[in-house]
Amino acid sequence: MIIEVINTGSELLLGQVLNTHLGYFSEQLLPLGVRVTRADTVPDGPLIEQSIRESMSRADVVLVTGGLGPTSDDLTRDIISRMFNAPLEFHPEILDKIYTYFAQRKVVPGPLTRVQAFVPQGATVLPNNHGSAPGLYLQRDGKHLFCLPGPPRELKPMFEDYALPILRELFAGIPPLARKVLRVYGVGESLLQERVEHHILAISDQIEIGYCARLGEVDLRFIAANGELVKQASAKARELLGEAIYAEDEGNMEQTVISAARAKHKTIATAESCTGGLVAHRLTNIPGSSAVLQRGWVTYSNQSKVDEIGVSEETLRLHGAVSAECAREMARGALAVSGCDLAVALTGIAGPDGGTAEKPVGTLYAGLAWKDAKDEVQVESHHKLLVPKRDDFKLTASQFALNLLRLKLS
Amino acid sequence: MIIEVINTGSELLLGQVLNTHLGYFSEQLLPLGVRVTRADTVPDGPLIEQSIRESMSRADVVLVTGGLGPTSDDLTRDIISRMFNAPLEFHPEILDKIYTYFAQRKVVPGPLTRVQAFVPQGATVLPNNHGSAPGLYLQRDGKHLFCLPGPPRELKPMFEDYALPILRELFAGIPPLARKVLRVYGVGESLLQERVEHHILAISDQIEIGYCARLGEVDLRFIAANGELVKQASAKARELLGEAIYAEDEGNMEQTVISAARAKHKTIATAESCTGGLVAHRLTNIPGSSAVLQRGWVTYSNQSKVDEIGVSEETLRLHGAVSAECAREMARGALAVSGCDLAVALTGIAGPDGGTAEKPVGTLYAGLAWKDAKDEVQVESHHKLLVPKRDDFKLTASQFALNLLRLKLS
Repeated sequence: MIIEVINTGSELLLGQVLNTHLGYFSEQLLPLGVRVTRADTVPDGPLIEQSIRESMSRADVVLVTGGLGPTSDDLTRDIISRMFNAPLEFHPEILDKIYTYFAQRKVVPGPLTRVQAFVPQGATVLPNNHGSAPGLYLQRDGKHLFCLPGPPRELKPMFEDYALPILRELFAGIPPLARKVLRVYGVGESLLQERVEHHILAISDQIEIGYCARLGEVDLRFIAANGELVKQASAKARELLGEAIYAEDEGNMEQTVISAARAKHKTIATAESCTGGLVAHRLTNIPGSSAVLQRGWVTYSNQSKVDEIGVSEETLRLHGAVSAECAREMARGALAVSGCDLAVALTGIAGPDGGTAEKPVGTLYAGLAWKDAKDEVQVESHHKLLVPKRDDFKLTASQFALNLLRLKLS
Repeated sequence: MIIEVINTGSELLLGQVLNTHLGYFSEQLLPLGVRVTRADTVPDGPLIEQSIRESMSRADVVLVTGGLGPTSDDLTRDIISRMFNAPLEFHPEILDKIYTYFAQRKVVPGPLTRVQAFVPQGATVLPNNHGSAPGLYLQRDGKHLFCLPGPPRELKPMFEDYALPILRELFAGIPPLARKVLRVYGVGESLLQERVEHHILAISDQIEIGYCARLGEVDLRFIAANGELVKQASAKARELLGEAIYAEDEGNMEQTVISAARAKHKTIATAESCTGGLVAHRLTNIPGSSAVLQRGWVTYSNQSKVDEIGVSEETLRLHGAVSAECAREMARGALAVSGCDLAVALTGIAGPDGGTAEKPVGTLYAGLAWKDAKDEVQVESHHKLLVPKRDDFKLTASQFALNLLRLKLS
């Protein structure tokens, strides 16, 4: 089964919007035993037609996203009509549905809204319950073409409610593909391969092994038709990598921290200078984090470090705000003021300015404070040199801080 | 000039990593008068070869990213060698460079490192100064093929230092394409088109107009070969949309807030409950924000709202933490404790739990406090119903808060 995706939209090629559709389709299709074979991105315009023709000549199923909206650069509907010799027909019930959708949101529909109620003859309408433009499904010469809206919040429910049932029938009999992603911290991509790959291939050469390195993490991926092999590969990798694996599949560092803290009934406070709130933001992305994260400070100015979490003016004078001493006092102060069980503190130089020979851009000091088994406060500090690029620095620093919390909670 | 991009990597099709290359290439190529015509995404494997063949049959320039690394799923080097009948040759000077790169980072290179020092005969090596795998440049039948590394921090410097000079010569004589993106808050996509499009087309039909709606914002984009037309279109759009335009091009809401605050020498404090630090994180993404953002609180628990920024227990008892009264007290307290000129406060229900009939998931109360011309404290509150999905809610709530700061600073 060959499945191709065509993402339409000049904004994708211009990079104004990132394509999140592929991950979504993958997640939906793997349990059906298939995967996206290839994906084309084309601008609004005549290339959409060429791309659909090419994909339909190669693939069994073609999923087109975007270009169904009301504006002048939304061309998919017209292109399909021409390609399939299927004149556009006005469907008043679709227009009614769109008007109802707008009315519920107290939005006045403009005159352009109407074009979305035209459907190429013979196409099956895929209703849009979360937006205005309906989707389309057409068959031709045993090939299946789905036209879906671009915005994820419209695409996803439409795909699951109306496209997936058709695909499930189409792929009936194909065994599901098993996949496992192990997310690794602190081991580089090639070292990871050297440590893991030959052990996995010794289990079976039917296991597809993939590596994906990103800032501050590497994903190790197993895919196989036989789910048992994926289980064995994952168990072996866990044995080899131990604590370096911090999450699986859609999990992430913040999810692991929140789950571990909830399981142990521990509360957390954050004191952030250089990360500016990113650690707290990541933790609070997790539903249920309010049972864990009690409070956080963004102590960006020196004065706020003194006022809020009791960093001493002497420490700032003697060692500076970017120092192990300051990180320790921030963590200790955040723990004391918040009454939490753990506190993590970060201070560093995110750049682009503020670096010195001794403390270059990328310098991070992290402090961790916690109450030990005897309820006594313990504090440790860590010094790292991270990527000297502001946003990458913030991200890797937050990852480092979350990993400290994870290890302490494990 | 037809320019196609091929992004290789199973992780892209599986959605484990988002493709940021297209935006980067676009930004680099528009000033050269060209744009990416089309982009193919293929998994590690034989489709890379098919995709390169297809692209080279259609395009003048093909940019391939990924698959140059040391691991077993990095296949681009071998495929190029086979396609071009160009045997791989070992280049000791490349290996030396890689070893030096690793040594500087105190990383011990593994045995797999060596494969990256093999180059197809006749290919020009594009040095990698920020990673191990070098890039490749080949010509055939007047077509130009560039093979570049996948990780952006390796791709970008290599592209700018070694690929761009070749492309600049290739595209010499093509006038640059002018582009302007106006970023709009508070006006929906179709309403935007209705208000703007006929006025722009009245200036010239040589202006390409694009719309891109994302959560909490719409981008309005003009592209033309004649830069003067883009200027006129932008001026007209500014006249029509006024304050709804909050940034241009690569600008964003947080950049606008920081710039405006710096220009007026105003300082800002944040008090965040439901957004969990996202507003502070976004503001501190901007270089120079330390002159503006003095401190922020993530007052996630009720107790922290009382302790840190003086929300009264009576307010919490009578109105609850998610209320206009609480938002006002949070803003007023953050202003008073921090001594800043402006404070923004957010409290709401991010979900998935915690919603009620009266205050459903998606409920946001925002407070804004500032000192007026007479140095008296003013406080206002706003009530919004936003997307009832945790991460989307946090994002749109942070956008709303930043927009409040922007308007107050304008």
